Amino acid sequence: MIQYGDSILIMLEHEEAKYFSEVKRGSVLKTHYGNLIMDSLVGREFGEKIRLGLRDAFLIKPSMIDGIFSLKRSTQIVYPKDVAFILLYLDIKPGDVVYEAGTGTGVMTSAFSRAVCESGKVVSYEKRQDFLEKAQKNVRHLGHIERVTFVSGDVAECKESQKADAFFLDVPEPSASLESAVSILKKSGRICILCPTANQVQETVTILGTLGIIDIQVWEILARSYKANPERFRPEDRMVGHTTYLVFGIKVEGRKLNGKE
Amino acid sequence: MIQYGDSILIMLEHEEAKYFSEVKRGSVLKTHYGNLIMDSLVGREFGEKIRLGLRDAFLIKPSMIDGIFSLKRSTQIVYPKDVAFILLYLDIKPGDVVYEAGTGTGVMTSAFSRAVCESGKVVSYEKRQDFLEKAQKNVRHLGHIERVTFVSGDVAECKESQKADAFFLDVPEPSASLESAVSILKKSGRICILCPTANQVQETVTILGTLGIIDIQVWEILARSYKANPERFRPEDRMVGHTTYLVFGIKVEGRKLNGKE
Amino acid sequence: MIQYGDSILIMLEHEEAKYFSEVKRGSVLKTHYGNLIMDSLVGREFGEKIRLGLRDAFLIKPSMIDGIFSLKRSTQIVYPKDVAFILLYLDIKPGDVVYEAGTGTGVMTSAFSRAVCESGKVVSYEKRQDFLEKAQKNVRHLGHIERVTFVSGDVAECKESQKADAFFLDVPEPSASLESAVSILKKSGRICILCPTANQVQETVTILGTLGIIDIQVWEILARSYKANPERFRPEDRMVGHTTYLVFGIKVEGRKLNGKE
Amino acid sequence: MIQYGDSILIMLEHEEAKYFSEVKRGSVLKTHYGNLIMDSLVGREFGEKIRLGLRDAFLIKPSMIDGIFSLKRSTQIVYPKDVAFILLYLDIKPGDVVYEAGTGTGVMTSAFSRAVCESGKVVSYEKRQDFLEKAQKNVRHLGHIERVTFVSGDVAECKESQKADAFFLDVPEPSASLESAVSILKKSGRICILCPTANQVQETVTILGTLGIIDIQVWEILARSYKANPERFRPEDRMVGHTTYLVFGIKVEGRKLNGKE
Repeated sequence: MIQYGDSILIMLEHEEAKYFSEVKRGSVLKTHYGNLIMDSLVGREFGEKIRLGLRDAFLIKPSMIDGIFSLKRSTQIVYPKDVAFILLYLDIKPGDVVYEAGTGTGVMTSAFSRAVCESGKVVSYEKRQDFLEKAQKNVRHLGHIERVTFVSGDVAECKESQKADAFFLDVPEPSASLESAVSILKKSGRICILCPTANQVQETVTILGTLGIIDIQVWEILARSYKANPERFRPEDRMVGHTTYLVFGIKVEGRKLNGKE
Repeated sequence: MIQYGDSILIMLEHEEAKYFSEVKRGSVLKTHYGNLIMDSLVGREFGEKIRLGLRDAFLIKPSMIDGIFSLKRSTQIVYPKDVAFILLYLDIKPGDVVYEAGTGTGVMTSAFSRAVCESGKVVSYEKRQDFLEKAQKNVRHLGHIERVTFVSGDVAECKESQKADAFFLDVPEPSASLESAVSILKKSGRICILCPTANQVQETVTILGTLGIIDIQVWEILARSYKANPERFRPEDRMVGHTTYLVFGIKVEGRKLNGKE
Repeated sequence: MIQYGDSILIMLEHEEAKYFSEVKRGSVLKTHYGNLIMDSLVGREFGEKIRLGLRDAFLIKPSMIDGIFSLKRSTQIVYPKDVAFILLYLDIKPGDVVYEAGTGTGVMTSAFSRAVCESGKVVSYEKRQDFLEKAQKNVRHLGHIERVTFVSGDVAECKESQKADAFFLDVPEPSASLESAVSILKKSGRICILCPTANQVQETVTILGTLGIIDIQVWEILARSYKANPERFRPEDRMVGHTTYLVFGIKVEGRKLNGKE
Repeated sequence: MIQYGDSILIMLEHEEAKYFSEVKRGSVLKTHYGNLIMDSLVGREFGEKIRLGLRDAFLIKPSMIDGIFSLKRSTQIVYPKDVAFILLYLDIKPGDVVYEAGTGTGVMTSAFSRAVCESGKVVSYEKRQDFLEKAQKNVRHLGHIERVTFVSGDVAECKESQKADAFFLDVPEPSASLESAVSILKKSGRICILCPTANQVQETVTILGTLGIIDIQVWEILARSYKANPERFRPEDRMVGHTTYLVFGIKVEGRKLNGKE
């Protein structure tokens, strides 16, 4: 049953438009097709059909991805194809302590805070105060903000004693923060660095090799969307060509480097 | 601290080999580099360095992906790139009720049971008794089997009253099970159908259109791995060219089809 | 030395714009940066720098690809990535007799007529008179029209006795023209069918199997462009996701089909 | 009509094997299916069916690609997908003067010598005498060796006065040969540099920018092969993940660099 406070996605019958909104007392959703009094949705069920002006529309429970695409963005978001891969390859699970720097739009912050569950924790560093404020709004919107500790500043100044199961690094110059990030990781903890350019990958991999990180992997994810037309099945004409390279590794104790400690 | 019963990954210092094992009383891991008495690991920490014969090796806490690749397989596994995307696009979260058919190797069963947390539930149908037995062994190994109800048989015979937040369909002929799958879904629930061939996508999309499914999306995920050599950075010479197409949709109430109910 | 009648590409110094033109007596090229009196280019050399308004610009000898992108299009062009692959996989060489249907924009017609050289020949069928007229204009512009015989009509009505070394089929319904196309091929001749959708590939491959075609191959070419910035090297953000599937095969004598002639 | 001296491809009826051979007097092709006396093929036509032991087989006229894959390789070949793209993007045409360094296996040498026709010319530099000898054998086999001038040595020592319409650079350290290559190009001539690694691209693009090269483009070609099964249409499970990046540019007169000559 839909209640006040719920997020909701209104999808037109032939899918020509989607509206992401919140069910707030007295609010009205204005669309090209007509206006929707949000109070009228309370007590209805997700999946039901309603009228929007002269058209049918459906009440959909938004997914995390719907939430991500509804965000007001101050900086580049992490794409869903990358969000999914990062969560799995960092092996995020209930109870984990996850650190990230920077917070950015808060997309990964939200994804992590959902995956660590009540017993887990997310600590998120961001140097830019303006980003941090918008990101906090976004995480409140996407959910589970109570599991997140936001820190305004550089991860290099981190004094916390609790070590991380996983570290996600997404900053303009990752090489400058790698040593701090690795020092916060538990042994056997996993790190992911988001590197939009090949140059950043080259620097990052070089430095990781000096910091006792093993099993360094570099991945790029391409998500190819198809036209869902069974009589003319084929890929979409245009696609996202590149978002980022993803560098992963595992921290271990005193790894022998090139034959020396 | 490593304890009896833990899964563990032993990784050689220069990453030339990995061994997935369990810390069992009195067991010995036999490798090309030497034997390892597993009792000797108890009380050590993950991330520590040990000696394996004449070599250094590291004690790594295995990820879900490490677990997946350690499985004895009776049938094709779902690849990590697809596991990750399915979890996010089906919006699996704590508390969800997830159905799947068939169980296959149990890889998605495990991934779902971890993501739904203690408050969620997974119901998994499998027609082939031999697959089901191996899959149960695999899920026990990967964890959280207590959240899974295994059913030997066809999902068409499902009599359960509890509806699904998400349905994952991975059977040889998906078109034959689509109606049953959709009927088990809650309104606003999400379905994913794994279709290795274009022909299966064409059939699946055609049928979904008659079953009140909207927002039908077809995706293919390509995960490109790079050589982590900063002086000679480039993609791997060979890659996985194709595993499967993924079809997604959302169930809604009485959708108007081609102008008729 | 640049002469009247030459095609020319004017490229701005920082590559912010390109102008494709012809050196005609008395003509003026009008651009955002200023006007260029084309007579002034006669006697200069390709590669030279000139002034265009307040800016430097270069006189470039256009490639076939520059020509293709300069065309007025009445229908979809074949992309360079596909043009290149088709020329090689059909093994087009000096002296070849190449048939195509339909002519479309004339892009492949021009590519073929250049590759077959003086001793070769191209026969191009097009049912739509309006397409044919524009295509002839395009081929005149791209060059070697003297090697092309244009035919207004359906390739099924072809009465010519000279058989083809290669046949290129690019029509809205390829399955309807396959038998005609194959009958025009020499034994050991090669055919390429352009199929934008998976459904067309499925039909085409099914029919080719009944027409004595062997070595059936289906390809899709992805051309990934990178930002040529050595400090921030990475793929372009957006790319062409799909143009067409390409089906290839070789005609042989009386192939045994499923154990029967 | 098949004659002595012809290259030929013998393809088994269900395409389970291909044999590339030459029709030589008195020679015998030995295969798993039986022996074939090559003299018996003289006077038959390409495309005909013959018996090979207990099986049917077809006499196919080999394409340039068949020739490439039949080569004895001393070093990495250029893949057909890249050969095709290079020929088109370098705009190779009848009458062109094409330089390359190094000769390698001779694959590009042959492709160029075919495309420049009788009126064109190829000059190929190779430092390693052992490569050069094998490459000459390969080009003789692939055809048109009479249009090629092979030079044993470094392209930096080139003293020829005739400038190149196109230059193809495929050497272990391209950055060391770029200046020589560019100096051999005509103004408005085109260069292609084969760079297997991102590091080579970064160096190459940096240097090209100092040598008066404009319109620098970097491409990567992915050729995706599909299973030609109309009932189970889908991409092949494994594919070539990477061969090389391709860098292209055009030489112009005294380009202004960063505001200076």
